[in-house]
Amino acid sequence: MLTPEQLARLDQAFNPRGVAVIGATTEQHRVGFSVLESLLVGGFEGEIYPIHPRHETILGKRVYPSLAQVGRPVDLAIVALNERATIDILDELGRYDVKAAVCVAGGYSEIGEGGEELQQALADAAARNRVLLVGPNTLGVINARVGLNATFWPERLQTGGKVSVITQSGGVGQMVICKAQEEGLELNKWIGAGNRAVLDFDGLLQYLAGDPTTSVIAAFIEGTDRARSFVELAAEVSREKPVVVMKAGRTAQSQAAALTHTGSMAGSYKVYQDVFAQFGLLSVPNVDSLVSACKALALAPLPRGGGIGMLTPSAGPSILLVDALAELGDSIPPFSQKTLDRIADHFKNVPVVLKNPLDAAAAGYATEGYLALADAILDDPGIHLLVTINLDHKNRRFPAQELVALSRQHAKPIVALFIGHGERVLAYREACQAGGIPFYGSVEEAAWGIHSLVHQGARHLAEGAG
Amino acid sequence: MLTPEQLARLDQAFNPRGVAVIGATTEQHRVGFSVLESLLVGGFEGEIYPIHPRHETILGKRVYPSLAQVGRPVDLAIVALNERATIDILDELGRYDVKAAVCVAGGYSEIGEGGEELQQALADAAARNRVLLVGPNTLGVINARVGLNATFWPERLQTGGKVSVITQSGGVGQMVICKAQEEGLELNKWIGAGNRAVLDFDGLLQYLAGDPTTSVIAAFIEGTDRARSFVELAAEVSREKPVVVMKAGRTAQSQAAALTHTGSMAGSYKVYQDVFAQFGLLSVPNVDSLVSACKALALAPLPRGGGIGMLTPSAGPSILLVDALAELGDSIPPFSQKTLDRIADHFKNVPVVLKNPLDAAAAGYATEGYLALADAILDDPGIHLLVTINLDHKNRRFPAQELVALSRQHAKPIVALFIGHGERVLAYREACQAGGIPFYGSVEEAAWGIHSLVHQGARHLAEGAG
Repeated sequence: MLTPEQLARLDQAFNPRGVAVIGATTEQHRVGFSVLESLLVGGFEGEIYPIHPRHETILGKRVYPSLAQVGRPVDLAIVALNERATIDILDELGRYDVKAAVCVAGGYSEIGEGGEELQQALADAAARNRVLLVGPNTLGVINARVGLNATFWPERLQTGGKVSVITQSGGVGQMVICKAQEEGLELNKWIGAGNRAVLDFDGLLQYLAGDPTTSVIAAFIEGTDRARSFVELAAEVSREKPVVVMKAGRTAQSQAAALTHTGSMAGSYKVYQDVFAQFGLLSVPNVDSLVSACKALALAPLPRGGGIGMLTPSAGPSILLVDALAELGDSIPPFSQKTLDRIADHFKNVPVVLKNPLDAAAAGYATEGYLALADAILDDPGIHLLVTINLDHKNRRFPAQELVALSRQHAKPIVALFIGHGERVLAYREACQAGGIPFYGSVEEAAWGIHSLVHQGARHLAEGAG
Repeated sequence: MLTPEQLARLDQAFNPRGVAVIGATTEQHRVGFSVLESLLVGGFEGEIYPIHPRHETILGKRVYPSLAQVGRPVDLAIVALNERATIDILDELGRYDVKAAVCVAGGYSEIGEGGEELQQALADAAARNRVLLVGPNTLGVINARVGLNATFWPERLQTGGKVSVITQSGGVGQMVICKAQEEGLELNKWIGAGNRAVLDFDGLLQYLAGDPTTSVIAAFIEGTDRARSFVELAAEVSREKPVVVMKAGRTAQSQAAALTHTGSMAGSYKVYQDVFAQFGLLSVPNVDSLVSACKALALAPLPRGGGIGMLTPSAGPSILLVDALAELGDSIPPFSQKTLDRIADHFKNVPVVLKNPLDAAAAGYATEGYLALADAILDDPGIHLLVTINLDHKNRRFPAQELVALSRQHAKPIVALFIGHGERVLAYREACQAGGIPFYGSVEEAAWGIHSLVHQGARHLAEGAG
C-alpha cells in the first residue's frame, strides 16, 4: 500500500510538468525512439526532454546529455536502457526529484535465475531514491486525459474517458486499448504493471480508487504473490467504483507459459475465481468481455434489480442472448399481466406469442409501435433493465434518441444489441452511448454488459440495505 | 433428401433467369418493398418481375398484375403475402413452372395451435405444384456469386466467396453475414431455412454439398426433428467439404424461447453435442467462432498434424491463446532440440527463454530476425501450423508477403493474430488472407480458426489412412 505522499507523487507523475526520455535514440526500430515518438504523437503538452550523451536533436526535439543539464522539473522519466543501466540511472533520477520512472527493459525476474537478483537491486535503488517505479518489463503508462502516452507504442488515444486500466501484460493491455477504441469507449489512465518490482496491483488500484476522474477500473492479472491484499482492496473499492478483473491462466498449459513471463506463478485459476466470488468482484474471461463490462459500467445507470426485459425483431438472436445471460446467472422473468395486456393491445389480431423476450416482428417494424412496446416493458415493476435487439435495415430508422429519453423517463438502463456496421450504425452507436445506452455488436458482449450492470446494481442495493 | 431433379431445380432457382416478387408494394416499411429493393441493390442481373394487381411501377420497375402476364421464365418467386394468401398463390407458381418459392410470412408452426395446420397446408400445396419451398418464416436466400439478394434486407454482398450458410434464423444469419463482412470473408450462398415446411437442413446441405462453388458449409440450428439424418449427411459431406455447426439452446431458458420461434424444440444441447462429436462434426458455440472457423477452412491449407508453434512479440497474448487452445483440446508441443539451437543462435547473449510459445521481443522486432525465427519453427517436424502473434506498431512493418511465401515453401498453414486496427492493419489483413493466411483480431477467434484447421486436418489424415 502507498502512503499519502507516495500517492501524491504518483499523481504528479501522471500529470507531469516535464517528462524525460532516458536513452532516446535516432534508431527507429529501438524503443528509445518509439517512446519519444509516443510522447509527441500522443499530444502531450508539457515539457519533453530526450536524454542522450551524444545526439543533438531527435524528431525535432533538443536532446540533453543528462538530467543535470535540463534544469527544470522532471516529474516522470521513461527509462529505455538495458537491464543494468536502468538500475544505475536511478541515483540520478533521485537526485533531481523525479517522482516516478517507467522501466521498459526486460531481463529481470521473468527470466528466472540471475534476473531475480537484478530485479531486487532495481527495487532497492528505487526505494533509496524515493522513485516510484513502474515495471520493469513494461510497455509504459498512459494518461489520455492529458495526452500523455509514455509507452513505446506511438498512438494517439481519444481523451476524456472514465475507465482506467491496470494490466500485467503490455500486449494484453494493447488488446484492451484496441477493443475499447473499436467499441467507442474512451479510456482515462492505462498502466502496464509488468514485473511490479515496486508498484504492484494494490498500490496502483489504491491510486486509481482515489483518482476523481476514474469511475471504472479494469485489471488484467496473470499472477501475483499478493493476490489477497489486491482482492480485499478491490472489494472495498468496488462498493463505490466498479472493479472488473480478468485473470489469465485457466489451464496448466498457460500457467507454464506465464511462469516465464512477468516472473510470477499464475496460481490456481479456480482459487482466484473462488476468492473473486467470495469478495463479490466481477471476473471476466477475456478482453472482449472486459471491455464490454467496463463500457456498460461507464455509460449506463445501475438497475435496481435483476429483471431483464427483451424486445427483438427476430427470435434467433434473442435465443442466443437468453443462453448467454442464463450461463452468467441472469434471469429473464415473465412480464406482469398488465404489461402483457398493454402489449396485446398493440398486436390486436396479428398472430404473436406474448412473452419475454418479446418478438415484435409481427408489429411491422414501425418506430412508433416499437417505442410503445419498449415503454410498456420499462413500465413493468419486475423489469429493471431493457435490452433492445436490432437488425440494421436501410428502410427502418433506429430510434436512438427516443430510447435515451425512455431510459431517463423510467430511470432504468437500456442496453442495445445491434447487428450491422458502417456509417449509419456508428451514428446510432454514438447517439446511444452519449445518452447512456451501451451499444454492442455481439451477443456475448451484450450479455457481459448486461450482467455487469446487474452485478454492480446488486452490490449497490446490498450496500444500501446494510 | 432431394431427388437429382429437385437438386437441379433448386440450382436453377439459385441461378434464376427471372425472379418474381409476389406482393411487391410501394410502402417502404413493408417487406414486399424491401424484397424488390434487395434484388435491385444486390446487383442481380437477371430479370426481375414485381407482381401486384394495381401498381404500375415500383422503384422504376414495371409491375405485372399476375404471373400470367409475365410470359417469360420465372425460376424463383419471393412471396411477400400473408400466411393464407401465401398458400393460395402456390397453384399459380406451379402453373408457370416456378422452381422454388421463398415464403417470408410468419404465422405458421412457430405460433403453435392453428399454425401447424396452416403449415401443413402450405407444404401440401408446394408438393402438389412441384415448388421447392424455402421457409416459411424466413428472411430469404442469397447467392452472392450472381448478386442475387432474395431477402427483405436490402444490402449488397461482396461476391466470390467459398463459404455457404444454412441458418434456421434470419436474424442470426444476418449476424453471420455482418461478422463475415467485418472479417473480410466473402460468402457464396446464404439460405434462411425458417420453419422448413419443405426444404429442411438435410436437403439444403445435400444441395450445397453438390455445389462446386461451395467449399465450406456453415449451419446454424435451433432445433429439428430430423437431426440424425442431417448429422449423418454432414459427417459424410465433411470428409471432403468442412461442415461447421452452431447449435442454439444451451440452457433450459433458451429452449423455452426457441419453442415458439421456428416451431421446433431445441432438444437437449448435450445430446446434440454428443452426436456431433460421435460423427466428428466441428461444433462451435457462437457466431464469432462460426465465422472464424469458416474463414480458416476457406483460406488456409490443412495441417498434417496437431503441433502448433507460436511466435509472439509479447508473452501476455500468447498465454491467453494457449489457454483458449488448451480448452479446445489443442496442444503446443515443445520445439525439437535442433529448432531450439537455431533459435538460440539468433538471440546469442540476449536474455530470453527458449520455448514454445517463443517470446521474440528480445530479438528487437527487426523483420529479418523475425522471419528467420518463423522459418526455424516451420522447419520443426513436430510443428504443423505456425501462429504469428503481432502488435501493430507504426515503426514496424508486418511482413505479410514473406509469411505467405514461408507458408507455401513449408507447405504448412500460418494463422495470424494481429492486435490493431485502421487502414494499415486492413492492408496487412488483405495481403495475408489473399495469400492463405487467416487473420484474426481476437484471441478466441484465432483459437477457433486454428482449432478448425487442426480438426479438419485430422479428419483428412484419418480418411487417407483408412
